Amino acid sequence: MDRSVLGRGELIQILREKKAKVDELIFRWLPQSHETKELDLLNRMMRDYPGRGGKGLRGTLCLLTCQALGREEEEALPTAAALEIFQSWILIRDDIEDMSEERRGEPTLHERYGVPLAINASDALYARMWDLLLTNRSVLGDEKTFELLNEFTRMTIHTTEGQHIELSWVNDDRWDLSEEDYYAMCRKKTSWYTCITPLRLGGVIGGADQKLMDAFIPFGMDLGVAFQIQDDVLNLIGEEEKYGKEIGGDIWEGKRTLITLHLLRSVDPEESREILNTLSKKREEKTEADVRRVLEFMKSYDSVAYAKAVAKKLSEKARGYFEHRLKALPEGEAKTVLRGIVDFVVEREL
Amino acid sequence: MDRSVLGRGELIQILREKKAKVDELIFRWLPQSHETKELDLLNRMMRDYPGRGGKGLRGTLCLLTCQALGREEEEALPTAAALEIFQSWILIRDDIEDMSEERRGEPTLHERYGVPLAINASDALYARMWDLLLTNRSVLGDEKTFELLNEFTRMTIHTTEGQHIELSWVNDDRWDLSEEDYYAMCRKKTSWYTCITPLRLGGVIGGADQKLMDAFIPFGMDLGVAFQIQDDVLNLIGEEEKYGKEIGGDIWEGKRTLITLHLLRSVDPEESREILNTLSKKREEKTEADVRRVLEFMKSYDSVAYAKAVAKKLSEKARGYFEHRLKALPEGEAKTVLRGIVDFVVEREL
Repeated sequence: MDRSVLGRGELIQILREKKAKVDELIFRWLPQSHETKELDLLNRMMRDYPGRGGKGLRGTLCLLTCQALGREEEEALPTAAALEIFQSWILIRDDIEDMSEERRGEPTLHERYGVPLAINASDALYARMWDLLLTNRSVLGDEKTFELLNEFTRMTIHTTEGQHIELSWVNDDRWDLSEEDYYAMCRKKTSWYTCITPLRLGGVIGGADQKLMDAFIPFGMDLGVAFQIQDDVLNLIGEEEKYGKEIGGDIWEGKRTLITLHLLRSVDPEESREILNTLSKKREEKTEADVRRVLEFMKSYDSVAYAKAVAKKLSEKARGYFEHRLKALPEGEAKTVLRGIVDFVVEREL
Repeated sequence: MDRSVLGRGELIQILREKKAKVDELIFRWLPQSHETKELDLLNRMMRDYPGRGGKGLRGTLCLLTCQALGREEEEALPTAAALEIFQSWILIRDDIEDMSEERRGEPTLHERYGVPLAINASDALYARMWDLLLTNRSVLGDEKTFELLNEFTRMTIHTTEGQHIELSWVNDDRWDLSEEDYYAMCRKKTSWYTCITPLRLGGVIGGADQKLMDAFIPFGMDLGVAFQIQDDVLNLIGEEEKYGKEIGGDIWEGKRTLITLHLLRSVDPEESREILNTLSKKREEKTEADVRRVLEFMKSYDSVAYAKAVAKKLSEKARGYFEHRLKALPEGEAKTVLRGIVDFVVEREL
């Protein structure tokens, strides 16, 4: 078998195995039951999102990068687990900020326990993430541990900036946005925590040189935007069961996506008024029929196909970076899996 | 002048001076204006609460402990600033979780910008706090910096646990609480981040031995509870202008305080039903008259006086710890100010 390409089934199997190892550590790390009734609930709340499945892509990228650099996967496990805890933390906040009702087929944390407890539990979870990162010291030493901590603060700063930009557009009811505005937002909101930082963390642990560390940025930047666009596509046309969120959620939430931006510049002025009217309504004022109608427009104007094509192009660009600027990453099993992930990002259905 | 006691005016002057130094660093550290309109708003939001005044007690406790141990105040400034950023972060979340409308005489952050942006801005602020703590490395070295980071995660864990317990009582409409339940909640919610951790951080920087580090815990535990009780008292009978929050806010929010617990066990069954009925109503269902009536019950049953007496007793107990278990902390100006703060905590009107 050619070890430089990987079948889809094989890739999914590897993702599952990596995720299982990371999850095992997460659930060992997070506090278990507690004798005080209230704190027992807090601990259960912290374990809720990490237990809801997901691909574990971010932790896996970190593990694979470390392995590709010739180090043991075990060295990167706490950091990969911290990344996945970060992801759960972001999802809890995201769901509150977007007033989402479902996450991975179940009620969101704030739907289940109310906004105050959910905010607080996510803070508690975030603190456990820092604590876990600090355990790296005994294995990786001071220098690498500090570098990892710096990567985590940088990631949080970018992610919150991206989130702020997106929320501001909704708040200000802004639709006069260029594609470049959208990409710039995605790079901050998605690329850093989904691709760039996971790769760089693996790089720190694996001892990557500065040139390779720098190269992770443009590669992860484009791959992250491709990932986000595919997420937007699945949000509209995915299968609810696989995707685990309500289909058309972005229309309910009035999100600015590449698809809506394409649609708005393709339609005639009258249609544009109708679509903007729907998108700008508050969530609770929208009807099923409103959402279906916007979805129909998106299909008939090929806006979804357009977004898919852009995602494909970006992932090809990332693939180009991968083969050239990441040449210093030694070939082998781990690199082959990483290569498979580049394509998977835009071909996935979950 | 006897340097072992301190006049009130002198103490307040010292608190102001310390706070000014800490604030100077905070505003130098937090990001300034930004060319992107959206990110400019995010940066302004991060600077909002830190700019609203307050006593700066936590940062000052850290600076003074460091100084009492014979080290320069400057060494503790980034950590003191991080503590005050933590306090701003907690206040933003607290205000959202309690749906408070005012903070220090101005609309709360979420009243001003909406809940989603406020949650996100507080996350961004918290990340800047970690980043600031990491700068300690170049001055304090690896060992102390890691100890400080550990203190911060421990503080966050205790604080979120305390907050969770308090929010759960409101959620579950629980009033069958003992005084011990209340103290246990306060120790977690208030004592750690208001007293214990600030002292221990100063201890780490100043090189305190393990015995002294341990002694900060019982001392700060009692002092923190005294602080919280005085906060509850001021919430009910303080002058709005000095206190900076609406008076009676805890009754509006249905908070479990020592005062309400005392009241509920002092009144007759009929009054108890009336009071519980008011306290358990949702904030928006309560009337001014409801709140005034509970306040009058509290005054006529001496519940406020009772709480004041307990706070006084706790601060005296803390003072006893201070003179005995903190003996290893050398006498001098810094220790004199710390001594003054012990009394100030229960005598303050702001």
